[in-house]
Amino acid sequence: MAVRAAVAGASGYAGGELLRLLLAHPEVEIGALTGNSNAGQKLGALQPHLLPLAGRVLQETTPEVLAGHDVVFLALPHGQSAAVAERLGPDVLVVDMGADFRLTDAAAWERFYGSPHAGTWPYGLPELPGARAALEGSKRVAVPGCYPTAVSLALFPAYAAGLAGNEAVIVAASGTSGAGKAPKPHLLGSEVMGSMTPYGVGGGHRHTPEITQNLSAASGEPVSVSFTPILAPMPRGILATCSAAAKEGVTADAVRAAYEKAYADEPFVHLLPEGQWPATASVYGSNAVQVQVAYDEAAGRIIVISAIDNLTKGTAGGAVQSMNIALGLDETTGLTTMGVAP
Amino acid sequence: MAVRAAVAGASGYAGGELLRLLLAHPEVEIGALTGNSNAGQKLGALQPHLLPLAGRVLQETTPEVLAGHDVVFLALPHGQSAAVAERLGPDVLVVDMGADFRLTDAAAWERFYGSPHAGTWPYGLPELPGARAALEGSKRVAVPGCYPTAVSLALFPAYAAGLAGNEAVIVAASGTSGAGKAPKPHLLGSEVMGSMTPYGVGGGHRHTPEITQNLSAASGEPVSVSFTPILAPMPRGILATCSAAAKEGVTADAVRAAYEKAYADEPFVHLLPEGQWPATASVYGSNAVQVQVAYDEAAGRIIVISAIDNLTKGTAGGAVQSMNIALGLDETTGLTTMGVAP
Amino acid sequence: MAVRAAVAGASGYAGGELLRLLLAHPEVEIGALTGNSNAGQKLGALQPHLLPLAGRVLQETTPEVLAGHDVVFLALPHGQSAAVAERLGPDVLVVDMGADFRLTDAAAWERFYGSPHAGTWPYGLPELPGARAALEGSKRVAVPGCYPTAVSLALFPAYAAGLAGNEAVIVAASGTSGAGKAPKPHLLGSEVMGSMTPYGVGGGHRHTPEITQNLSAASGEPVSVSFTPILAPMPRGILATCSAAAKEGVTADAVRAAYEKAYADEPFVHLLPEGQWPATASVYGSNAVQVQVAYDEAAGRIIVISAIDNLTKGTAGGAVQSMNIALGLDETTGLTTMGVAP
Amino acid sequence: MAVRAAVAGASGYAGGELLRLLLAHPEVEIGALTGNSNAGQKLGALQPHLLPLAGRVLQETTPEVLAGHDVVFLALPHGQSAAVAERLGPDVLVVDMGADFRLTDAAAWERFYGSPHAGTWPYGLPELPGARAALEGSKRVAVPGCYPTAVSLALFPAYAAGLAGNEAVIVAASGTSGAGKAPKPHLLGSEVMGSMTPYGVGGGHRHTPEITQNLSAASGEPVSVSFTPILAPMPRGILATCSAAAKEGVTADAVRAAYEKAYADEPFVHLLPEGQWPATASVYGSNAVQVQVAYDEAAGRIIVISAIDNLTKGTAGGAVQSMNIALGLDETTGLTTMGVAP
Repeated sequence: MAVRAAVAGASGYAGGELLRLLLAHPEVEIGALTGNSNAGQKLGALQPHLLPLAGRVLQETTPEVLAGHDVVFLALPHGQSAAVAERLGPDVLVVDMGADFRLTDAAAWERFYGSPHAGTWPYGLPELPGARAALEGSKRVAVPGCYPTAVSLALFPAYAAGLAGNEAVIVAASGTSGAGKAPKPHLLGSEVMGSMTPYGVGGGHRHTPEITQNLSAASGEPVSVSFTPILAPMPRGILATCSAAAKEGVTADAVRAAYEKAYADEPFVHLLPEGQWPATASVYGSNAVQVQVAYDEAAGRIIVISAIDNLTKGTAGGAVQSMNIALGLDETTGLTTMGVAP
Repeated sequence: MAVRAAVAGASGYAGGELLRLLLAHPEVEIGALTGNSNAGQKLGALQPHLLPLAGRVLQETTPEVLAGHDVVFLALPHGQSAAVAERLGPDVLVVDMGADFRLTDAAAWERFYGSPHAGTWPYGLPELPGARAALEGSKRVAVPGCYPTAVSLALFPAYAAGLAGNEAVIVAASGTSGAGKAPKPHLLGSEVMGSMTPYGVGGGHRHTPEITQNLSAASGEPVSVSFTPILAPMPRGILATCSAAAKEGVTADAVRAAYEKAYADEPFVHLLPEGQWPATASVYGSNAVQVQVAYDEAAGRIIVISAIDNLTKGTAGGAVQSMNIALGLDETTGLTTMGVAP
Repeated sequence: MAVRAAVAGASGYAGGELLRLLLAHPEVEIGALTGNSNAGQKLGALQPHLLPLAGRVLQETTPEVLAGHDVVFLALPHGQSAAVAERLGPDVLVVDMGADFRLTDAAAWERFYGSPHAGTWPYGLPELPGARAALEGSKRVAVPGCYPTAVSLALFPAYAAGLAGNEAVIVAASGTSGAGKAPKPHLLGSEVMGSMTPYGVGGGHRHTPEITQNLSAASGEPVSVSFTPILAPMPRGILATCSAAAKEGVTADAVRAAYEKAYADEPFVHLLPEGQWPATASVYGSNAVQVQVAYDEAAGRIIVISAIDNLTKGTAGGAVQSMNIALGLDETTGLTTMGVAP
Repeated sequence: MAVRAAVAGASGYAGGELLRLLLAHPEVEIGALTGNSNAGQKLGALQPHLLPLAGRVLQETTPEVLAGHDVVFLALPHGQSAAVAERLGPDVLVVDMGADFRLTDAAAWERFYGSPHAGTWPYGLPELPGARAALEGSKRVAVPGCYPTAVSLALFPAYAAGLAGNEAVIVAASGTSGAGKAPKPHLLGSEVMGSMTPYGVGGGHRHTPEITQNLSAASGEPVSVSFTPILAPMPRGILATCSAAAKEGVTADAVRAAYEKAYADEPFVHLLPEGQWPATASVYGSNAVQVQVAYDEAAGRIIVISAIDNLTKGTAGGAVQSMNIALGLDETTGLTTMGVAP
């Protein structure tokens, strides 16, 4: 019997990618699609790549419209999920693709988002220690941010294995879809093609506390995070270059062994063969994570690089993966590890 | 029972896209993979986006290696398919993704390809009149060229409906993957990013006789074709801008009606709603064709624009679609009309 | 003694390119800079590539601000130039980079622009027959549109030499800067990277009557123009693929000879050696026009392809070139034929 | 009286950019152009953007051909400069754009380049302490590497002012032209568009010892450098994201003050206003360096980001700037701080 899913926020990039995945999911039937500012419009005009849904009309995001589904995905602006979720009832699986329920630290939420903290839901990054168990059977899922997905999967094994000192330096470049579909001058094609530019430098990006939360949990001690996000001239993809001081006595072999062990059984995270480095093009449209590690003995640092598709594993694919776990389906159902390349 | 498929030429762009599609095809089991200059290498190093096949080793392209499969796909350089095909026996389905068996006119073959004509196989563009019937049960398929796919689907309804005069002017821009994976200076990223440049201008491109063949068949009379291909700064996609003089008495409504009728039941060709124009991004990685028509009364021309993914519908997706028909499977099995966008 | 120049509309792409050229112009001193919606802002925030002017503050576009200059460049929205120009007095050189004064046919203006026709000024495409003489000493210049520049320079020699029939088919791809700096969803980097899409198909683009005007003047008879503009994934550049039926008896040699003659003494238009084709990257940031011709005997068509930088020769460079002529300076002063490549 | 300049290696990207700058240099006359594998070819076929030199023919790189010039620029593969330079005589200014004479530490040279060390020449990064004086009147100049230019200008003021601890973490993304013009599979447009991928991770890149040399000199103590270069989907530009632990008591004001002081009088290095971040597009084709600083108090790190054009300030522009100093010309002659944008 099909799982009936509604998508609130179907006109944006996250919503569109989610629909692409749900259309290919053998257990899901797509129900209501909502999008407030675009309510009444056909999806074909807003998401012209989703031809099977071209004739569907967007509705308003109301409890009535979202009622009667097994799963409701929320792809809403930050701060709007809590009000919608509480009207949906405790038996509906609510998968929040926004930030509202990711952080455990209310003070950090308020500092970075400027509004009261709504709470904390099971965190939809199953590869983290303990996360998969918390998702099983849960009716609420907080999908991680795209940067925290790429960075946490790059660095947590080094912290979990006790190899890395408690500071991390992260420089991560993202494709422009991470900035959303609302038109702004600096996101124009004329501005981004041929250009790289940082933003939120110096700790200001909202994903900083989420990264800190994940790495500190893996380490068991507070990890100090320097995070610089960069806008890159590509529509999709995150390449995260992460490093941490190696603890005394660490060897290249120990680093590699920690990653081999951490990812031996993970269906989506691939530690590449030595000598091969992640490329965002290789995971385009896929739920795969490519990871590679190095130990720079001269600099005394462990360097880990990961590549994901920010819209797939970084958002909508992660949401589907978590939905599968929450519903007791095979975790990989409807997801692929093949990128569309070149 | 699974269809066992071999791929000769698995290291190139066409071979890689084919493998991506076959991996998602529920009826196909992937058998031997060959690639002469790369024989002995792991696929993971050559096609890093195909993680499920990363450990597979390429073999030499020999009759022995290709034996024992239900289907053999040939993604070989032009002129090499005939020798391989004749060693495979008449009971194996051979799908040739090269040009060798596309043309009916031996003289045109020799003029454009400079070698003896190998013959003519059923043409793998099922949407053309009569093509689907010829493919059913066939053991040989000639997959069309990427430009002829885009152009023929744009223009044949106008000719079949008797609306267009017998000359056509075509300007089609292609992503760089159409030029293949062999490194050449003009294909370097440094050269192609930010640049558009034509090639094969004035009738010299090898796809010219194939386009002429298809349009003339639709018209019932020889069609004179002016075809200018352009290299565009994108990895995939073809946007074909095609026009022909309208015959006397043609109206915009008649043009639209002809296309609505031609494509009403086609699973992959979508005539867009009026006012919406094809975009290559919308068909990225998909087997869909987006088509739109206009009638320019002042200029007296019918203008038809189509967008395809040159590697999917233009090559590997077209090959799978034809295989499905030849084997009696549902034509759409393993194929999607959803693009990966943005 | 320096020529003192004001720029109205200094915050947009055309204004920015003009300032880049004027800063390098040895005879020009940059005076007032205006930009209504951005008045009061520093140029450094709006045009971060123009470091020498980073501290300059934009003013309102008023007659008082624009008074006291030798030259006033207008980079304003269509329809606003006439009102500003008439307040500037007859002794000031006014160079209008908008469309207001380009067309000779008031009916065509009204049909395409929907407002009363303001008049016709000397046309700033000096390479056209008679245009240079009309610009000499003129106090008013209408800078051509970017597409008409590329297309007219591609086709007028064929018409002027009587080689081409009176219909032309033009497909021209433009970089995104041609669409301006106002943020719109379809111009987002996420949308344009990796995508090509047409617009204004079927004769609807406002540059159609301007192209028709130029080609008809060259031909001496009305030329019927089919013009399809395409948005391409690059920030700058136009590649125009233009063709026309060859008149009876035309030969490839005659075509080439006509172009060699037309451009033998032109400082900015370069007919490329046979076998070499224009590329937009080669004219990036330069005032050069690359042109190549072919005669497709089988199709009976003359094909001419040109590449320009839409912001330089297509707008601001053309404006400076015309200013030079109007002021009696050497036509090439401050301009280059070298592109920034790769 | 003009300075007569020869360019050895005129067919590559560095040589092409140098010629573009020299053509615009008012004091330079371009003499012999050489390019071994392309000797005998016209420059127009190899550098189609340099129209003024299209007819020039490349010669062999021999002492005879290079004789009789005031300046000889060497844009040769690493390891070839010494042999050429010693045949040119002590009175000719030799500007080496290769790596041969950059390093002071012979052991580091041999470890990273695998050949005997040729020596050390005055280092062509005039903004470094003492560098300008060493260049004045010198007959030999070693032009810095592109990454060391971007990184050293980002970090040396923090070290020179005693603000930063002696380890630095650097992640720098470069456009593809930095990898040169020799065609290799991973540099194909199909591979690089839409993709980011690191290389030389873990200290293996040859620019690591050069960066270490510059930062250690500024610090007065050995600086440990972790350097990760990344290939980015753009033809030009380097964005260097650099950080170092702040020494105790450092404040944001102190950091900013150090950079304001360091760059107050530099013609090419621009510390951006607070709130504005470097973008590679803003320095496209220019000799400018955009720099911005942040102090991340929570992470305890100074973060400095710089943007350059790898071919201009990073190679050919830096070469011309140093030539100007060596010859006693104004340092900015023939160079611009304006980028070609958008």
